[in-house]
Amino acid sequence: MTPKAIDKPAIDMLGRAPLATLAEAVSMMLSRIPACRLDFEEIPPDEASGRVTARDIISPEDIPPHPRATMDGYAVRARDTFGAMESLPSYFEIAGEVAMGEKPDRPVAAGICHKIATGGFMPPGADAVVMLEHTVEADRRMIEVTQPVAAGGNVIQAGEDTRRGDVLVPAGHRLRPADIGLLAGVGIVSAPVRRRARIGIISTGDEIVPHTETPPPGKMRDINGLNIAALARLSGAEPRFHGIAPDDETALRAILERAISESDLVVLSGGSSVGSRDAAARVIDSFGPPGIIVHGIAMKPGKPVIIAFAGYKPVFGLPGHPAAVSVAFNAVVCPAIDKISGFADVRLPRILHARLARSVNSAAGRRDFIRMKVERMDEPPGFSAIPLLGKSGAISTIARAGGYVVIAEDRQGIAEGETVEVEIFD
Amino acid sequence: MTPKAIDKPAIDMLGRAPLATLAEAVSMMLSRIPACRLDFEEIPPDEASGRVTARDIISPEDIPPHPRATMDGYAVRARDTFGAMESLPSYFEIAGEVAMGEKPDRPVAAGICHKIATGGFMPPGADAVVMLEHTVEADRRMIEVTQPVAAGGNVIQAGEDTRRGDVLVPAGHRLRPADIGLLAGVGIVSAPVRRRARIGIISTGDEIVPHTETPPPGKMRDINGLNIAALARLSGAEPRFHGIAPDDETALRAILERAISESDLVVLSGGSSVGSRDAAARVIDSFGPPGIIVHGIAMKPGKPVIIAFAGYKPVFGLPGHPAAVSVAFNAVVCPAIDKISGFADVRLPRILHARLARSVNSAAGRRDFIRMKVERMDEPPGFSAIPLLGKSGAISTIARAGGYVVIAEDRQGIAEGETVEVEIFD
Repeated sequence: MTPKAIDKPAIDMLGRAPLATLAEAVSMMLSRIPACRLDFEEIPPDEASGRVTARDIISPEDIPPHPRATMDGYAVRARDTFGAMESLPSYFEIAGEVAMGEKPDRPVAAGICHKIATGGFMPPGADAVVMLEHTVEADRRMIEVTQPVAAGGNVIQAGEDTRRGDVLVPAGHRLRPADIGLLAGVGIVSAPVRRRARIGIISTGDEIVPHTETPPPGKMRDINGLNIAALARLSGAEPRFHGIAPDDETALRAILERAISESDLVVLSGGSSVGSRDAAARVIDSFGPPGIIVHGIAMKPGKPVIIAFAGYKPVFGLPGHPAAVSVAFNAVVCPAIDKISGFADVRLPRILHARLARSVNSAAGRRDFIRMKVERMDEPPGFSAIPLLGKSGAISTIARAGGYVVIAEDRQGIAEGETVEVEIFD
Repeated sequence: MTPKAIDKPAIDMLGRAPLATLAEAVSMMLSRIPACRLDFEEIPPDEASGRVTARDIISPEDIPPHPRATMDGYAVRARDTFGAMESLPSYFEIAGEVAMGEKPDRPVAAGICHKIATGGFMPPGADAVVMLEHTVEADRRMIEVTQPVAAGGNVIQAGEDTRRGDVLVPAGHRLRPADIGLLAGVGIVSAPVRRRARIGIISTGDEIVPHTETPPPGKMRDINGLNIAALARLSGAEPRFHGIAPDDETALRAILERAISESDLVVLSGGSSVGSRDAAARVIDSFGPPGIIVHGIAMKPGKPVIIAFAGYKPVFGLPGHPAAVSVAFNAVVCPAIDKISGFADVRLPRILHARLARSVNSAAGRRDFIRMKVERMDEPPGFSAIPLLGKSGAISTIARAGGYVVIAEDRQGIAEGETVEVEIFD
């Protein structure tokens, strides 16, 4: 099945359109998202953790700015140590000590050394550091050097780490704590990052009331709005909740229109019944071209996922069940957030190896995400994964599940005792 | 070597105390941290993502509150379908339709059915749902049922998911987005969580100036303060920077005293020279008993790590090099934060399988953390890990490293071509 074929799905003999695989669906989606067009922001490094760089960050100076010792010892001219050995050491007069935080100006000459600590600036004339371990104090003013040191030994040269003008952090990089330290270290006080992607969130369904209200008989509280907002924040985006839309096409269209205009992408959830889903699909499609490009993915849970575009802005219709929402958000929405945010790398899953405690089956051609409870065990691999196969519609298994195991399209199950990779929930 | 032996380290023939292994050091540390004593806070679920629950959260109601359909179809009395088959269907009159979000009050009786959608409340008298696929519309008021359904079929009973009074989320659980949705779903508007652990941060060294200043010759900007603050936030704690302490025991003692009194744990960094480290160690130890319990860990980078206690509050002395700070924070400080925060589970590393691009060596008995650049490759396992073996003191490799590979104490290296587990940096 080619992506082309899915774009205008073929109808089989029973009148059913074939489902896209997850990889096909994500690939078609990503090909329609243009390169990042989010605004730049300049923010202090201290606030930039987790943000994506908007352009290459160039080092404004050499690191280090001056040659420094990388070991505790004595700064010398290397050539004065040549031939030194335990039985015939070279002698050096201790002419001074390099204080931390000061730039030494007294030069080192033949037969002269300065005591120096790791990180200390090299004095003029010295080109190497003899390690403390290769010296013996002859008296308070004299040392014996028992091993030669090469020129440049135990010294990091000016600019050897990074030269002024080098790329310190590339564009499209998600800044991590150590990157933040690096930016601070070269004196960058404002980092160019993309603003956070804005995600509009809509819950749908006549039966849904806000979670702060007591639902009258027949109705239930909104679960997905808060779940999706928290998932969006974890993924580095900025969620905005646009409310609960009833199963009324006119009302839904008005809410969706506003969400699209105010957001970089929109996520709808709900519609557990076929009729409600069909109505939502018609409304979503009406914001094309191109409208809906994927209607159903061969995965479980999450099969009824809709991927649509209002111009270049993605609109996702997720199923109503919370477990399906989590899986579909991570599998389908996260890659869209990353591309929109200008993140050039790949978001990596959190994997744990565990022994499967009970066999699980899966349909061929479908990608199954089986929720697992994870428990420690003494033997390797150290963890046991227990499938949580709750009744359709159950939500209480959520807090017990530590993650899920993926059964790929080409497998029809996994046998008890196999080692599996559990993708851990954040 | 037993933990007891390390508590008062034996001295070997060369006058050196043996180093603790990482596992020994962490175990000794954790045994001294009392059970979580952080205050409770009650906060809206929407703000609780990533927080640790302070007590078991009990479901205030049955889920679902009323029996609901789990499929689209018709609500019936199951016994009226017994014996139904394609050649001899049972006939039902469609007496109504259950609207989403309404509690039906018109009862279902013999030979009567109500149309119902997934999630709809079951009408009185009905005990099963016949799937749409097992029916044929005879006319607009009548259906044929072609397969029998058992009592309870395609229905989730009141309280079947969770009963009122059941533990919904246990104490000591770090709340994830799906948990947040779950709490919202049962109408919990304030979640009992522990306040965030407070981490006091001190940078030390005469050569360090604030990162916002231009360092005069010989000095350098603070890198570790911002790195540690960002690491602390990622781990769910609240950092507070107490400034840069000079290599002066009186000044450091005053800053440390204040940091200890205002924080749940304190992290110092810096002191690249032996003299500076010794001075910091004396000051840290003076806040005992017990003072320093671990002085040096058999790991690289991070060997000079100090673990001390001022009463029951941990105080960490981390090396000055940024790479060592990152490794030591994750390996040693994070477990302390988790225990102090009341997190009852295990923080799981983010693992990626990759093929090692070049052999790396390691000393036996030491735990090595080798930084790796990670690149995609076409063959399995899909990624290549390239060791970044920068000059000691280099910091520019930080932004290029995707994570690190651990070489355990019992191995002396890893050969090119082996599949390794890369722990991905957050």
